[in-house]
Amino acid sequence: MADGSSGAPAGPTPFFQRVMALVDELRLTESAPPDRRDRPVIEFRSPEELSQLLPLALGEPASDEAELLQLCRQVARYSVRTSDFRFRNQLYGGVDGYGLAGALLTECLNTNQHTFEVAPAFILCEATVLAHVRRLIGWSSGDGIFAAGGSMSNQYGLALARYHRHPQVKTSGLFGLRPMVLFTSEDAHYSVLKAAHWHGYGQENVVSVPTDECGRMRPEALSAAVERVLSEGREPLAVNATCGTTVLGAYDPLPAIADICQQHGLWLHVDACWGGAALLSRQWRHLMAGVERADSVAWNPHKMLGAPLQCSLFVTRHDGLLHQCNSAQATYLFQQDKFYDVSHDTGDKSIQCGRKVDGFKLWLMWKAHGDSGLESMVDTTFAAARYCADQVSRRDGFRPVLPPGSDAGQCANVSFWYVPAALRGQEETPEWWHRLSLVAPRVKEAMVRSGTLMVGYQPLPHKQAVNFFRLVFTAVPPLGRAEVDYMLDEIERLGRDL
Amino acid sequence: MADGSSGAPAGPTPFFQRVMALVDELRLTESAPPDRRDRPVIEFRSPEELSQLLPLALGEPASDEAELLQLCRQVARYSVRTSDFRFRNQLYGGVDGYGLAGALLTECLNTNQHTFEVAPAFILCEATVLAHVRRLIGWSSGDGIFAAGGSMSNQYGLALARYHRHPQVKTSGLFGLRPMVLFTSEDAHYSVLKAAHWHGYGQENVVSVPTDECGRMRPEALSAAVERVLSEGREPLAVNATCGTTVLGAYDPLPAIADICQQHGLWLHVDACWGGAALLSRQWRHLMAGVERADSVAWNPHKMLGAPLQCSLFVTRHDGLLHQCNSAQATYLFQQDKFYDVSHDTGDKSIQCGRKVDGFKLWLMWKAHGDSGLESMVDTTFAAARYCADQVSRRDGFRPVLPPGSDAGQCANVSFWYVPAALRGQEETPEWWHRLSLVAPRVKEAMVRSGTLMVGYQPLPHKQAVNFFRLVFTAVPPLGRAEVDYMLDEIERLGRDL
Repeated sequence: MADGSSGAPAGPTPFFQRVMALVDELRLTESAPPDRRDRPVIEFRSPEELSQLLPLALGEPASDEAELLQLCRQVARYSVRTSDFRFRNQLYGGVDGYGLAGALLTECLNTNQHTFEVAPAFILCEATVLAHVRRLIGWSSGDGIFAAGGSMSNQYGLALARYHRHPQVKTSGLFGLRPMVLFTSEDAHYSVLKAAHWHGYGQENVVSVPTDECGRMRPEALSAAVERVLSEGREPLAVNATCGTTVLGAYDPLPAIADICQQHGLWLHVDACWGGAALLSRQWRHLMAGVERADSVAWNPHKMLGAPLQCSLFVTRHDGLLHQCNSAQATYLFQQDKFYDVSHDTGDKSIQCGRKVDGFKLWLMWKAHGDSGLESMVDTTFAAARYCADQVSRRDGFRPVLPPGSDAGQCANVSFWYVPAALRGQEETPEWWHRLSLVAPRVKEAMVRSGTLMVGYQPLPHKQAVNFFRLVFTAVPPLGRAEVDYMLDEIERLGRDL
Repeated sequence: MADGSSGAPAGPTPFFQRVMALVDELRLTESAPPDRRDRPVIEFRSPEELSQLLPLALGEPASDEAELLQLCRQVARYSVRTSDFRFRNQLYGGVDGYGLAGALLTECLNTNQHTFEVAPAFILCEATVLAHVRRLIGWSSGDGIFAAGGSMSNQYGLALARYHRHPQVKTSGLFGLRPMVLFTSEDAHYSVLKAAHWHGYGQENVVSVPTDECGRMRPEALSAAVERVLSEGREPLAVNATCGTTVLGAYDPLPAIADICQQHGLWLHVDACWGGAALLSRQWRHLMAGVERADSVAWNPHKMLGAPLQCSLFVTRHDGLLHQCNSAQATYLFQQDKFYDVSHDTGDKSIQCGRKVDGFKLWLMWKAHGDSGLESMVDTTFAAARYCADQVSRRDGFRPVLPPGSDAGQCANVSFWYVPAALRGQEETPEWWHRLSLVAPRVKEAMVRSGTLMVGYQPLPHKQAVNFFRLVFTAVPPLGRAEVDYMLDEIERLGRDL
């Protein structure tokens, strides 16, 4: 189409509807059952190979619709099937069908979330779901916003922390002030470190608080770190506690951390991006006891719940602070002489200007599943993880990273080394651990090349710094014993003879 | 659905495909022609009314699919039809059909843009389109990333500027340093002001450089501002120049600004979020002459080009700097012992962790339209704006905000006051201007309530600080004289007798 037309009203079937037919034909949103081994989760090609396979170059001539459809088919073929249960590589997985419906409607309505004027229904849906989440946390008032992912949501927390203590930084900056310090655990997500750079603190002013053997922040270590920072003449500002660490799935002990924050007047931000779904479950919300004492919370329903990427929310119990902190009063967008109640315009609370409509997806999912349906999704997910952890503790060659019995306090992560037959029953010398560290990357390569499974691995400094697998469980598709058995069998099949 | 199922593999027609049928039935992605006055661009309800009409509350019971489809129908009904040509309210409009196809495929494949491992095809498409845009700018090397909107893209520029000059800020922060100052024009987007707060500069350290009567930064004023900042003992760091200001559509004079930056060693970031599409057109790229001298550029194809929201890119001519600036070396995501070339993993260049797949939409549009098709879209858009400006200068009651003949240098914005019959031919006292300032909001209310048009308005301090209309032109749907005449007629119809 070199005629500059939009494609939308052109033919009897708009091109985007033909792509949706392709989605249907290729079953891109579905998982194959464990006994179907003929449909790979990925058809892997190296970057060099894939660059040859895809006609990537742009310029001239334009492609016609048949060629474009073929391009889409190729892109789909070489993309990862994240909706297949075999995709266990990240903290997200398959997409909820109702959430997806919300995402597609959002795409077709192509608007911004910044004013009621351009997004009336979406603004109300966002406000409703944020209020519902605040109630789940235990707050009767407050504010919130959907952000472009968890790193951004955590940044909102840090921005509010500083504004709350030092509103003048908005005007005059950090220059000449004594260093302000953020505390986060050594197992926490790297977004705090990245944010510390952008926000002008510097990474030296992020204190990495030691964790226990399960990856939970040690409150006594936090307390000691705060005292040390004070004695150095630096200013403790905020604590980032984690509910569901990225690798081990640890829940930091919020009550003890909240006590320390209260004692020193520190802002408590809770990064519950991964583990926040526990709030939906009567069985698991005890893992987040104390969250109501936080000043702000980040949660990504696009992780465990299967909301479409991206779906990340930030909430705070402080009413009005988001606007005070972030507003710039642009008169061309947030006119105060509009004919409706402009308190519904959310844009000036945001660091973004245009903002994608993410809240509606979660709102529609919540309508579709209800509180109890979402609870059941979370419970099923945790149950699969617990079954997996139990299997890992029983199977030959599988060696849990966490101490026995500690799984009960973790999120839906299962961490383990796989020990090939040739390494079993030997003295665990540094050389032995070194050889073990090579196993996970080799098994990973084998599973990706065969397309039978995708599981993440990584080292952790306080876990021998030796690569281990991290199996993460998410709600879509629902995972049962058959799927878990498949995963462990597959790792065994690929790794046994290494 | 309270059973926790995902919806995807449930029935013969997954729910999200039923929603796509609804999109088709309601023709949500299409524009009605000017002679169809029966399909409003918005069916406006106040926040209070809409809260009554939509069953917003969440909890129990879950809704069945029939109810959910009805919800989607209601949300669509009360949403703005941004694909209708009557939506001229923001710097975006209708969505390109091929871009939309890319967005929908992206949603169904539900993955992150952070590693080749989870997004192999998307990673290559993003890299290709970024390199193509760099070539358009005139750079043979460099780097780039798609970001969550223009405000974020501008933040990337500011982050690189600081890191380039003071890499140690990444480690030790801004504390104890002398104030660093950013320069941007008084007509520039507020994102620099918001970023200055988050990045720790403070808004006092953003110098607002005066503009000329067309809204262009005055180079001599910039020069004087830099000297003044130096004399105050503050450190000039970076200049944010704008190609296509938000309200007037001004292009700052890049060659003169680049000279000043060169003289003082300042980073030059170009915010071309709105006006960057001119690069695609042989007829209009002269407006951006000098852009090749910038250190970094932000451009939002989701604005003029009609790429689906969000589609914003950041490019820099400095190879390697994005990674050095933003990396945090998270070992669980960016393992260096992978079996493929990890230089294709983009995630550690980003301030986000998960990042939405936005580049593919633009890549697919480019495949569909080719360079020449995109050029034609841009030319059609500018032509419509020029025709509108000409009409505004001729029609009774329409009064251009810009001086005669100045439109040739602007982006696709047309700014004007509409003067009702009762205000014409009178002495222009402060009281007269005050009465005029009430016209735009009243006309706006009338057009929104009748659903016949949506056009933005705002005051500007250096334009009498009196509300005027800003008609913006975008590529989808293509706009011709009939559409422009409709818009001006409608404003006249609603405003004449005020």
